[in-house]
Amino acid sequence: MTTSSDQMDAPVPIAPQAATGSSVGVVRTLFLPFNEPLPLASGQTLDAYALAIETYGTLNADASNAVLICHALNASHHVAGVSADNPDDIGWWDNMVGPGKPVDTDVFFVIGVNNPGSCFGSTGPASIRPETGRPWGAAFPVLTVEDWVLAQARVADRLGIWRFAAVMGGSLGGMQALSWAITCPERVAHCVVIASTPRLSAQNIAFNEVARRAIITDPEFHGGDYYAHNTVPRHGLSVARMVGHITYLSDDDMAEKFGRTQREPAAGGAFHYGYGVEFEVESYLRYQGEKFSRYFDANTYLLITRALDYFDPARETDGDMERALAPATADFLLVSFTTDWRFPPARSREIVRTLLKNGQPATYAEIDAPHGHDAFLLDDTRYHNLMRAYFVRIAATLRSVDPVARASA
Amino acid sequence: MTTSSDQMDAPVPIAPQAATGSSVGVVRTLFLPFNEPLPLASGQTLDAYALAIETYGTLNADASNAVLICHALNASHHVAGVSADNPDDIGWWDNMVGPGKPVDTDVFFVIGVNNPGSCFGSTGPASIRPETGRPWGAAFPVLTVEDWVLAQARVADRLGIWRFAAVMGGSLGGMQALSWAITCPERVAHCVVIASTPRLSAQNIAFNEVARRAIITDPEFHGGDYYAHNTVPRHGLSVARMVGHITYLSDDDMAEKFGRTQREPAAGGAFHYGYGVEFEVESYLRYQGEKFSRYFDANTYLLITRALDYFDPARETDGDMERALAPATADFLLVSFTTDWRFPPARSREIVRTLLKNGQPATYAEIDAPHGHDAFLLDDTRYHNLMRAYFVRIAATLRSVDPVARASA
Repeated sequence: MTTSSDQMDAPVPIAPQAATGSSVGVVRTLFLPFNEPLPLASGQTLDAYALAIETYGTLNADASNAVLICHALNASHHVAGVSADNPDDIGWWDNMVGPGKPVDTDVFFVIGVNNPGSCFGSTGPASIRPETGRPWGAAFPVLTVEDWVLAQARVADRLGIWRFAAVMGGSLGGMQALSWAITCPERVAHCVVIASTPRLSAQNIAFNEVARRAIITDPEFHGGDYYAHNTVPRHGLSVARMVGHITYLSDDDMAEKFGRTQREPAAGGAFHYGYGVEFEVESYLRYQGEKFSRYFDANTYLLITRALDYFDPARETDGDMERALAPATADFLLVSFTTDWRFPPARSREIVRTLLKNGQPATYAEIDAPHGHDAFLLDDTRYHNLMRAYFVRIAATLRSVDPVARASA
Repeated sequence: MTTSSDQMDAPVPIAPQAATGSSVGVVRTLFLPFNEPLPLASGQTLDAYALAIETYGTLNADASNAVLICHALNASHHVAGVSADNPDDIGWWDNMVGPGKPVDTDVFFVIGVNNPGSCFGSTGPASIRPETGRPWGAAFPVLTVEDWVLAQARVADRLGIWRFAAVMGGSLGGMQALSWAITCPERVAHCVVIASTPRLSAQNIAFNEVARRAIITDPEFHGGDYYAHNTVPRHGLSVARMVGHITYLSDDDMAEKFGRTQREPAAGGAFHYGYGVEFEVESYLRYQGEKFSRYFDANTYLLITRALDYFDPARETDGDMERALAPATADFLLVSFTTDWRFPPARSREIVRTLLKNGQPATYAEIDAPHGHDAFLLDDTRYHNLMRAYFVRIAATLRSVDPVARASA
């Protein structure tokens, strides 16, 4: 990658204060094949794999303006814009990423990577295993957050990006950002961790386990090899999604959205009594569950919930989180939402306190938003203004990168 | 029922201040057949049915010392003591009910009734339907809390109890106590509502719906007629129980009990990675789910969760809870537990506020206990001292009952 001092000296564009910005427009997925085996935390390797990615904006001359967006359970590399294949398929963080948006693609080169093990184009359990000519199924290795970070790092290498201006994510994506900051400290200038947690609680793991049991005990699961039976464990996956979905919304938000609203009483005013859809919240959840079960791979659901369970930076430091986070050199931004009961503010504060004890730079914001865990995906003005301001600050640092130092690192 | 002024003048025994009291000993279930049709809220009727009950202590001469204990989802009429059929089967509220216990069976005559629709001896979906000679299955009518109150009232009639010294329950049992106080005000002197709610929130209904979907979409459910197929929807019922169980425990309690403790690393210190039981909380939940699926009837699970969903005293008063509770004349005791996130203290406070607005007598205690919703079943000293004191107060009122007034009511 060449650098140009002319370009380096050009003024850094600052995001305009438009309320929303505009879309990155039509985007196309790139598929990057990798032949160097990926060594996994489990001891297994993934010998050859492909990763689906999207990029938005332009990488600057010294490759200092790259932002990596890490996705959570059910999202993908398609972060922003409109899919070239499907005009209805808008990126999952389109309100955050785009020209004039908080993560401004007029300033930053933004990358979304579908993690290996997922089901949106990267190699996963539904992919054909070269050795057998059949889908991997249950034989696909267990992956961890650290494995994903390694895979993402290879994408960065391929694109000539040594150091990210920011690595950023919400929920499970925030865990990946945190892991980046710990395992590749020299490659992360800013680490943005939103609505996340240093590690799952027993209750978090319990909900994941219920979801997995619903999938695994569905007779259509066939031990994970349902592809060979031309079926999918649709019911189990639907129940899994329903239980997950409840944990994404706040109690208040559900009350606000659905309350106890029931189907219309029959003529004569008599209430209906039965086990069908009687309350609006049931209709909503069933719809969410069924929709999800039509596009998401059940083995991927198992794999990703397990990666969530296993993530624990302090696993190798005898539970000592201070020691675990000590290697990070990034500037941290942590954001939590008051009504998030999946990963409540207290969990973000644990990370902040640990960083501050270590003398590591951290900014923390607790947003009073009604939408529970899902708030990180939504367009809240205070939240987006905060993100915008933080990325304006990052943009102001871009010129200070010394390309010589970078090249010799 | 005869009364004796001698007995009426005898001093009321006051519960001793022993820490725990003793067991009521070996108890035997009574089965009461009813042939008068039970008219149901749904418009259907249950033409003939039997109810399983247990009683502890001695009904006094004017039948003024009776306490009705209402059970929640997975409990039964077997409230206290040791089942005559099974020495390992201790009553579900044995720490609360017995000689010298907070609800002192040396003072009170305590009744437990298995609600119709349940699966512990009373007529329910697994019972033989006389018209067909086969189990009711899906044809069993939907029952409501109000239907149960009517059935319990018939038990009281049968036993010659006109007015209860107290009607009491936790969780769904508390809803029944509340319903008693509203629908049969003259029959309830004290209404004890523990860890309950005036009506389910959307989130509560959502969790119930996930549980029901897990059962109904299990292929072994056979539309509710699994008895005819000699099977049970074991997997669905197990998942249902797992999700329920999570909501019974507090996040902190789970963290305390299980934390993130994992199976022992393999020799050499390598962590194990897989989809089996890796964390202790998984092992616990699976065990709970599987145990439950061996003894509980799936149709009963549907029926009782639906009764929970439908319960809403203000359903007939256009949502106006003040007007709904206005008919009650009982003295109320409400108890909630700080870490209960299924029915949090705020929900009990709603009831208290409504009663106080109506000028109805209410005592309220919020117990700082770590065990979540399940706390109402556990032996917490402050909680039990409170209950003991309240029932001592009730005992002191027994002599003030005027048997003549009662007989003419």
